[in-house]
Order: sequence, then C-alpha cells, then structure tokens
Amino acid sequence: MGRSASNLQINSARLWDSIHDTAKFGGTAKGGVRRLTLTQEDRQVRDWFREASEAAGLIVQVDALGSMFALRKGRDTSKPPVGIGSHLDTQPTGGKFDGVLGTLAALEVVRTLNDAGIETEAPLCVVNWTNEEGSRFVPAMMGSAAYVGNFTIEDILSHKDAEGVSVGAALDAIGYRGEVPVGRQKLSAFVELHIEQGPILEAEGKTIGVVDSGQGELWYDGRIIGFESHAGSTPMPLRRDALVALSEIVLAVEEIAKRHAPNAVGTVGEAMIATPSRNVIPGEIAFTVDLRSSDDAIMQALDGDLRNALTEIATRRNVETSLELVWRMPPTHFDPTIVKALENAANTLGYSWRRITSGAGHDSCNLNTKIPTAMVFVPCRDGVSHNELEDASQADCTAGANVLLHTALALAKIAS
Amino acid sequence: MGRSASNLQINSARLWDSIHDTAKFGGTAKGGVRRLTLTQEDRQVRDWFREASEAAGLIVQVDALGSMFALRKGRDTSKPPVGIGSHLDTQPTGGKFDGVLGTLAALEVVRTLNDAGIETEAPLCVVNWTNEEGSRFVPAMMGSAAYVGNFTIEDILSHKDAEGVSVGAALDAIGYRGEVPVGRQKLSAFVELHIEQGPILEAEGKTIGVVDSGQGELWYDGRIIGFESHAGSTPMPLRRDALVALSEIVLAVEEIAKRHAPNAVGTVGEAMIATPSRNVIPGEIAFTVDLRSSDDAIMQALDGDLRNALTEIATRRNVETSLELVWRMPPTHFDPTIVKALENAANTLGYSWRRITSGAGHDSCNLNTKIPTAMVFVPCRDGVSHNELEDASQADCTAGANVLLHTALALAKIAS
Repeated sequence: MGRSASNLQINSARLWDSIHDTAKFGGTAKGGVRRLTLTQEDRQVRDWFREASEAAGLIVQVDALGSMFALRKGRDTSKPPVGIGSHLDTQPTGGKFDGVLGTLAALEVVRTLNDAGIETEAPLCVVNWTNEEGSRFVPAMMGSAAYVGNFTIEDILSHKDAEGVSVGAALDAIGYRGEVPVGRQKLSAFVELHIEQGPILEAEGKTIGVVDSGQGELWYDGRIIGFESHAGSTPMPLRRDALVALSEIVLAVEEIAKRHAPNAVGTVGEAMIATPSRNVIPGEIAFTVDLRSSDDAIMQALDGDLRNALTEIATRRNVETSLELVWRMPPTHFDPTIVKALENAANTLGYSWRRITSGAGHDSCNLNTKIPTAMVFVPCRDGVSHNELEDASQADCTAGANVLLHTALALAKIAS
Repeated sequence: MGRSASNLQINSARLWDSIHDTAKFGGTAKGGVRRLTLTQEDRQVRDWFREASEAAGLIVQVDALGSMFALRKGRDTSKPPVGIGSHLDTQPTGGKFDGVLGTLAALEVVRTLNDAGIETEAPLCVVNWTNEEGSRFVPAMMGSAAYVGNFTIEDILSHKDAEGVSVGAALDAIGYRGEVPVGRQKLSAFVELHIEQGPILEAEGKTIGVVDSGQGELWYDGRIIGFESHAGSTPMPLRRDALVALSEIVLAVEEIAKRHAPNAVGTVGEAMIATPSRNVIPGEIAFTVDLRSSDDAIMQALDGDLRNALTEIATRRNVETSLELVWRMPPTHFDPTIVKALENAANTLGYSWRRITSGAGHDSCNLNTKIPTAMVFVPCRDGVSHNELEDASQADCTAGANVLLHTALALAKIAS
C-alpha cells in the first residue's frame, strides 16, 4: 500500500449524514427506528441504498431473498470480490446504528476510494443482507443463512409473519424479489463493522473491538413442578415451592457462567408462575435458560453443569424439573488472517483496540462457515442496543469505518 | 356433666349427609363447590340452613349483612348464648368442607342435644357468617369483621364485586338483608370447627388440632429495578439482573422464616418480569411477600429481617428495590379457657390431639378481638384446601364435631 493509501480516511461528515438520512425511514418520535424487514419502510431504505450505490458507480444486484449486492469492479475481474456490509432492517423499537452503521460505512469505503481515485485488484461488494433481526420473520439472519446453504429458498419463502404474509409475498409487495440465485454472488472474504451492543469497549475506553470470535448459544426451555399450597398453613419444612427451586436455578446459572469466566455468560430471561397468588406457594413455573461461550469445550461444560445443577436442586427440593435444549449454535472462530488485518489497520490508524468476542449473533457468524470472515466493533453508549436510545459517537463510527476501509484495502489490494 | 352427657356423640351419618346434601348447591363436575357469597347458590344453601335450623327448633335471625344466627334457648334466658359455627360460602373452585364442616357440625350439635333431650343453662347459637372467603367482595371475613366493629355497615354495603354489584344489592337480590343490627346478637363465647387447610395433623397422625393461636400476617408489594440488557453481550460482572436479585430475595425470605422456626412462614407468591424475553437480562420485576407468625415479637423481627435483606441485596447487586407493607394483621391468641375446654373434650373422647396454630385467617380471628374464642381443626387430605380436591374423612369430621359438642356443653353447661 502506498503512502497515499496509508493516510486515507473516510469522509466522517458524509457517513454521519448518510446514517441520519436513512434514519428517517421508519424514524420514531423517540429518535429510534422501526423498520421491520420487507416492509414499506424497508423498501424506502433499500431504494435509497440502491440509488446511492449507483451514484457511486456500483452495479446493484438483488438475490431471490432480497439481499442486495453493490459491486465495485477491481482490476482483476476474475477474482471474487471482498464483501463488506451488514443489514438495514431494525428491531420494532430499534436504533439508528445496529446494522445501518456497517452497511453505510461499507458504502462510504467505496465513496472514499472513488474520491481518492484508488482501484483495487479484487472487486469490492457492499452487501445489505435481508432480515438480520428476525423480528418479522424467523429465522433471524435469514439472508446470510440461506446464502451459506442452511435453508432451502422454497422453505424460507414460505415462512409467514404474524399477519400470515409470507416472505415471498412480502418480497413481491416491495419489489425486492431479485433474480440472482441465492449464493450465486461469490465473495472471497467478508468484513462487517457493527456497534458492540455491549458495554466492554466503553468500560475499558477502547475505540475498536477486533472481533475474533462469536459466542455459541444454547437455548433451553425448563419447567419446575412443585406443589401449590397455602402460604399460611404449610410449614417451611413441608413445602415444595417451585419459585424457591427456580431461585436456586437462577443463581446456579449465574454461578456456572462465572465458574467459566470470562468466556461464558448465562441468563434466565423468562420465568412465569402458572397461577400466581400472593398467599399461595407457587406450584409450577416455566422458565428459559440462555448459555453462551466462544469456546467449544466450555459450551460442553456449561450444558453438563446446568443439567447437574437441576438434578441436584430437584432432588434436594423434592420438585420435578424438565429441561429441553430448543436451539444450539456452535461458537464462531473468525478468520485469523482478517483478524490480523483488522489489528494492523487499527495500529496504522493509531486507535486503541482490544480483541473481543461477539455476544450477539450476526450475519458474519453464518458467512464464516463458508467464507473467511471477521468483524470490527465500535462502542455504543451504555452498551444499549435493540432500543430507541441506542447511540454511538460520530468519532467512534468514523474510526470503525476507517478500520473497515484499510482492512478492505489489505484484502482486495490496491492495483499497482 | 352427668354420665349420659360424657358418653354423648353426634350422629356421624346425619352430619355426613348434611355435608353432601348442601354440596349440591354450586356443586362442580370435579366434586368441588362454587358458591360465592350472596349468589343464588348461596341463597339455596342459606334456605336449606334456615329450614334445617327451624326443623331443629331453632329461631333464625339474620343481621343487616346477612349473617345468620340460629338460636337454641337455654334455661337461663338472661345469659348470652355460646356461639358455634363457621361459614357456608366457598372459593370459586372450592371444596365441600372449608366452612361447611364448622357450620353443619354446629347444627349437628344442637340436633344431638335435641335427640338426647339435653337442655343447657346458657343458650346456644349456630352462626353462618357472611362472606368469609372474600372471593366476590373484599374484605374477606366481612360479616365477622363488621360484627366486631372493624367497619361501618354503610361502608361494607357499598363494596362492589367485579361486575359492579354492591353488597347491599346482592343481599337484596337473594333476600338476605336481615333486620337485626350487626353486632346486636351478643355471644358469650365462640367455637369454630374447621379443616386444618395444612398438612401438620395428617403428617403427625393426629385427629384433633386444638387451635390456640392464629398467625399474624404481613403482606408486602415489592419491586426491583435493575438494567435490561443483551443476554449475549453483557459480561457477568457488569450485569444488574433483576431476576438474580429476586432469587436472592426469595431465598432470603425462606431463610428468614426458618431462622424463626417453627413459629414463622414466609412466601413469595407472585413475581412478574416486566418484559420477559429469553435473550434479554430481566430489568424489572414486581413481587409480593407474605410473612406470618403467631408471635408478636417474631412478627417485628420478620419485618426487620426482610427490610435488612432487601437493602443488603440491592446494594450488593446494584439494583433499586422498593417494599410497601400493604396489609398487616396482628397474631391471634385464642382464649385459654376455651382452649383448655377443647383439650378436655379431646381427652374425654380419647382422640389424639396437639396444639396447633392456624396459618389461615378465620372469622374466629376477628371474633377473638371482642369475645372469648377458640377453634378446633381436623386433618384434610394432603393439606389441600381452596381446591375442588379438598377432602376430609367422615371419621375425622365426626371427631371434630364431637369435640365441638363437648366444648359447647362445657361452656353452656348442662341445666341441672
């Protein structure tokens, strides 16, 4: 890379303007964005993205599930492009940055290269993946999952939202059922910039998170059957209180995650007493458990530790418990070469950085199963995401986009 | 008491028939009873009770809140009668014994005395108190509470059910707004037979519980405010998980009750996560606490221990908590003379017995604030009550009625 490229920086004001320009599509009174996938608001932002890409000289193609690929040619047209991007759909009460930052920063990368008159050896491809959020249609990360072959297209097209509208009908309704077969647009690598959606970078005062892994996830549905009885007339030693048993399980989940610190988290997010009453001992509770780690051996240990804890608590408390694993995703180990390129970029640009694990799922986790992939994180305020209050600073977003720029250049190489 | 009286036993078959005869008023498919206070089903059982009482030679009077007083004259008409009885209303999915046993056993006592030709010095009065259960109208134990002066009659008459029907209108609708001013029918004592509604007698193989006390109750509404955040991307040390804090509170309530064993119970009966989601750390939970003891000093200690535990947990867990005492009932200490008479009766009849504390509230707890009062318990299967499966054996019901008979005779005295 020559001197001019090593000093290259994206246009911070233009990136910031793009983020705020698109935030009006589905913008909420509280400053957030409600832009569920394949709705009219999603069509608006897709149209904006297509026009802006074409204005930047990119060739936009849409696949059969609506994922958008905006191609910038390289000198060597035989090479598959380096993919950069994210998604433009949001949660029902989402923010302005989740997904949007990664997609518009990728657009800003090619705009910056255009301004500097830089040609790359390999092409670049800015991608907007369909339905990352999964709020309207399951599964989440639909476009990227289908891209790597996890589902058939016929299956995905038939999935319906709460109103009974299928993915296929929704694509047709907004004119984004494309002609490119899913998976046809090859990519040699993929790099995604995203807000952290957690508090670590902010807490440690780091600007850049070089994401070397994504947590695996274990999702369970559990049930406790104790015995519902009178809160006044049932002595403490004769109780079979389902809520007391649940409380021990909740604390066991926390203890198990801490036992495998720092590379594990565990959460009971839902707990519902069957017939709650202030003067009745709870007899039955349904609950969920979410366990995550980026380490395969720890994943195994978390599962075993949880099952052992439930058995011990159920026996000692004289209650029945059941536990069903309803979903499992293995840990993601991002590509070491791209991770190294991200570190180099952060060093070149002089940003403080740390390696980090993604706690949330991303399209990149799907893509990494087939394509060398990695991610870069920037801090978000208070770690808040999936919330209209989601916020990130212009300086941090700019830093992330600069790391994306220099990593893309390192992968695609400047034409000499 | 002469030889004939000391051998006197109630007519077990007649008592059992009465219980099952009245169970048809509001009888359910599952063998339970749904007979909410002042409904047409309640009118039916009241009419039955009035006719049966009059057939037994009793004079039935009804007070302004519908409580029914069936008087059997004594030799000394200047003496206030000894009251015996309970209530005939049930929970929405109640059983055949709660309240019914005590009222119909009292009727059986006077039928037995009639059969034996025994006259007492003081009169006897069989009482059916209005709205013990509190399922349709608050407060529970309404008739007895008003009788001892805890409420004005105007206040009580204006209370409305979920459909907006007032107590006054409901009394008029079934023809049971009586002419006797509430509290006018004086009683020299009150004795109530009831199923235990708990598992102690059954667990210990005792036939009779001589109830010397009733637990005081402390009811609280609590709230925990933590911080809702992403279950994947929030490290364990940075969490402010409201459910983890609740779990420590639930276990603290149990520990506090056990610390004051055996004379305390503590229960968290309701706990509701504000916006539960399997991959979100719970940010807010509302919960209730129910603490009970029959010992005034322990009641004080329970309250202090709970508040200290909440403060400690909230500080350590970095969450906000609030706790509001929404109801308080002091412990009941039943009349030692009547308690002794119950023990004497159980001994005379050769029943196994133990002293016991009532965990639940009863009309007797109200009456004891003004009139010497005590209760006698018989076992119920598995301690189950407020349930269509509520069950008690004919032998135990008969034993309880015999203890009631001999205690009433000891208090009213056989005319010599």
